[in-house]
Amino acid sequence: MYEYSREVYYYETDQMAVVHHSNYVRWLEEARTRYFAEVGLPYEVTESLGVLSPITGLEIEFKAFGRFGDKFTVKLCMPKYTGVRFDIEFIIVNQNGDTLAKGRSHHAFVDAKTYRPVSLAKAQPHLHKGMLECIDGDGVQL
Amino acid sequence: MYEYSREVYYYETDQMAVVHHSNYVRWLEEARTRYFAEVGLPYEVTESLGVLSPITGLEIEFKAFGRFGDKFTVKLCMPKYTGVRFDIEFIIVNQNGDTLAKGRSHHAFVDAKTYRPVSLAKAQPHLHKGMLECIDGDGVQL
Amino acid sequence: MYEYSREVYYYETDQMAVVHHSNYVRWLEEARTRYFAEVGLPYEVTESLGVLSPITGLEIEFKAFGRFGDKFTVKLCMPKYTGVRFDIEFIIVNQNGDTLAKGRSHHAFVDAKTYRPVSLAKAQPHLHKGMLECIDGDGVQL
Amino acid sequence: MYEYSREVYYYETDQMAVVHHSNYVRWLEEARTRYFAEVGLPYEVTESLGVLSPITGLEIEFKAFGRFGDKFTVKLCMPKYTGVRFDIEFIIVNQNGDTLAKGRSHHAFVDAKTYRPVSLAKAQPHLHKGMLECIDGDGVQL
Repeated sequence: MYEYSREVYYYETDQMAVVHHSNYVRWLEEARTRYFAEVGLPYEVTESLGVLSPITGLEIEFKAFGRFGDKFTVKLCMPKYTGVRFDIEFIIVNQNGDTLAKGRSHHAFVDAKTYRPVSLAKAQPHLHKGMLECIDGDGVQL
Repeated sequence: MYEYSREVYYYETDQMAVVHHSNYVRWLEEARTRYFAEVGLPYEVTESLGVLSPITGLEIEFKAFGRFGDKFTVKLCMPKYTGVRFDIEFIIVNQNGDTLAKGRSHHAFVDAKTYRPVSLAKAQPHLHKGMLECIDGDGVQL
Repeated sequence: MYEYSREVYYYETDQMAVVHHSNYVRWLEEARTRYFAEVGLPYEVTESLGVLSPITGLEIEFKAFGRFGDKFTVKLCMPKYTGVRFDIEFIIVNQNGDTLAKGRSHHAFVDAKTYRPVSLAKAQPHLHKGMLECIDGDGVQL
Repeated sequence: MYEYSREVYYYETDQMAVVHHSNYVRWLEEARTRYFAEVGLPYEVTESLGVLSPITGLEIEFKAFGRFGDKFTVKLCMPKYTGVRFDIEFIIVNQNGDTLAKGRSHHAFVDAKTYRPVSLAKAQPHLHKGMLECIDGDGVQL
């Protein structure tokens, strides 16, 4: 399980005086970006090899409001990787341990020119090996 | 079914040269806001009555990339309303009829001070009546 | 003078219950994009010709708060164009005629690959001619 | 002089494959927020005392493009404080020392209810004293 943490920015709030929910989607990307960088699979490298990894789906439950002044933590893991597609399971908590949101996102590797799915196993065996090593079925809530 | 449409803004793209997926979540809010305004239940009124309607969940599939220069349309309907909670079913298409995204969002009415769920039927019978009239089980893809 | 108008989105507010000032910068881009599209110089065309037009400077005064429920109008004109650089003068008003912001932005044409300034007069005479026709020294506040 | 630093997020890029300029405006707010928190004048405290500090003006030069993968640093200082208004001078650099942007922003203390300017010296002498101690005329480029 990987953890990514930072403080809420003022501009992420809305007039309900809570974090606008669209920012949770951005936090998840921030966390994934750091996660893949830290396991040696940074986006820059992947993109420079002509492979993009767009999100293909998202299920998220919003459980509590985030607020300015909060420090949130995204906990994530990758329970599934098929060589072409992968899933990220996540939970977002605040500094008190309250769950702000949780869910799962779905991603695919696609060719940077054609936007068609690519098998990382064939196209980039080294990245594929790195992805395999990251599979973690233990979940995020342990 | 309600339809909301506008052009993609330049700042909504990312370096993949497509619309960043977090903006779809914002487009859905734009569409809901217009929808509820047009059926006579604008956010301003609801909020002025001390009732907020935060999103509590979202399932979305990203099917194709939106691009700068596109004109997108969000088609939505409200297949479910319980007096406290409601669901919005949606599909986002571009000017060619390609489906960019589709899914369902979940919402609840909460008290603006306590953030606890409120029964609109009791708290705001007039709004409740308006909501009941909007229930539309026909879906968005007809 | 060109006018661009739309309603404020909910997600553009912050916990001061007013429009976050960073969105004004985005509204200006929306307005410029529409403006150049309507005078026959759309970004898509310019970019497809290998020419980008990044912003190089901005002076903006924030005069009053925008709010959710407002309909704002960006009034703009192009008082200066040198063949390489141009200025946009702007004022943003709400539906009551209150000035929300006003100022001037600076832009340059640059090569899409090298990011170095390009003379549109030489590189794209047709676009240059179009730009010359748009020069409008009358200002935005008439 | 205060320094605030973080990595560029993927969603902050646009299809020019550089950081969208509106994000610089947000980075400046992030830096100011951290700055005032660290000198003992956090926004939360100020707002809880019924005092807001909206931005009233901004002059910014965009000097070079920020990119995904960059780590930027906002260097800022407060060269001017009048008891009601203050200025922030800033420069944004990347990890190579390239200047991405520089300029000055203007701010005022206003009453949270009336949005009218307030004299911090009278309304909140303790905050006023803290502000006075932060005045730094040495600039950001030393």
